[in-house]
Amino acid sequence: MTVPAHAAPVAVPDLASALTAVRDRGLRLSSARRIVLEALFADAGPLTAEEIARGAGGRVPPCDLGSVYRNLETLEAAGVVRHVHVGHAAGLYLPAGSAMELVVCERCGARADIDPRVTADVRAAVGAATGFVPRFDHFPLAGLCPRCADDRDEAG
Amino acid sequence: MTVPAHAAPVAVPDLASALTAVRDRGLRLSSARRIVLEALFADAGPLTAEEIARGAGGRVPPCDLGSVYRNLETLEAAGVVRHVHVGHAAGLYLPAGSAMELVVCERCGARADIDPRVTADVRAAVGAATGFVPRFDHFPLAGLCPRCADDRDEAG
Repeated sequence: MTVPAHAAPVAVPDLASALTAVRDRGLRLSSARRIVLEALFADAGPLTAEEIARGAGGRVPPCDLGSVYRNLETLEAAGVVRHVHVGHAAGLYLPAGSAMELVVCERCGARADIDPRVTADVRAAVGAATGFVPRFDHFPLAGLCPRCADDRDEAG
Repeated sequence: MTVPAHAAPVAVPDLASALTAVRDRGLRLSSARRIVLEALFADAGPLTAEEIARGAGGRVPPCDLGSVYRNLETLEAAGVVRHVHVGHAAGLYLPAGSAMELVVCERCGARADIDPRVTADVRAAVGAATGFVPRFDHFPLAGLCPRCADDRDEAG
């Protein structure tokens, strides 16, 4: 998951274009590889490798976790898939062309999309203050989800 | 580095109070442990374990990297030291009581402080949009530093 992509990311808006992109890059379209892509394009949001191996909530057949990891790595090197880090928890995978930006819970791994207008404002404010160009598509914004924040408050 | 602190963080504003806190927690104050604390309180900003082992820019004597890691772990478990993740790069260590929030370069590991007023605004905006309580003292804001952003634009 920590290996940078070898190929430039490909904008693949749907499963059909992802399958075409894989073939165009000379990769074999094995059934395991197809299952990984079907899971990522099944509108379930970003998924961990474990979630894909368990069948992505019934959307694809369950498959071997090691095979899922190997195929994610290959698809990422080909520029079709990208990953997002989630604190200490397992990384999330999604189509490379997705502009999705997330906030993740550093305690339980829960995640939520952020309105792009909000991240644009954050980028502008942090950029003006530091000169850095923040981006949240690889190392997302982190914090506590509402449930973990409540637990912390109750624990005092 | 990924092990949560076992003790609540201690506000140790200076080296003397850090040394006292270590003794108060029943830990031996070995010379290696003292060097780690001297480096972290030497006003050099957050440091990697490697930077401490190399002598923190001449501020402390060089020492064994394995020993630095073991002492950082012990001091973190005692609540005297905390760590910050820096993308794929080595983590940074700083006094546990420090409220410092950073933006880090996910490409080269460069880092900059962020004005607390800016992070307060970011927390409010992301909180209002998602219900999460963002915090940047453990998983900092990430992006590209000015130099890496320029390189990317030139390569673009």
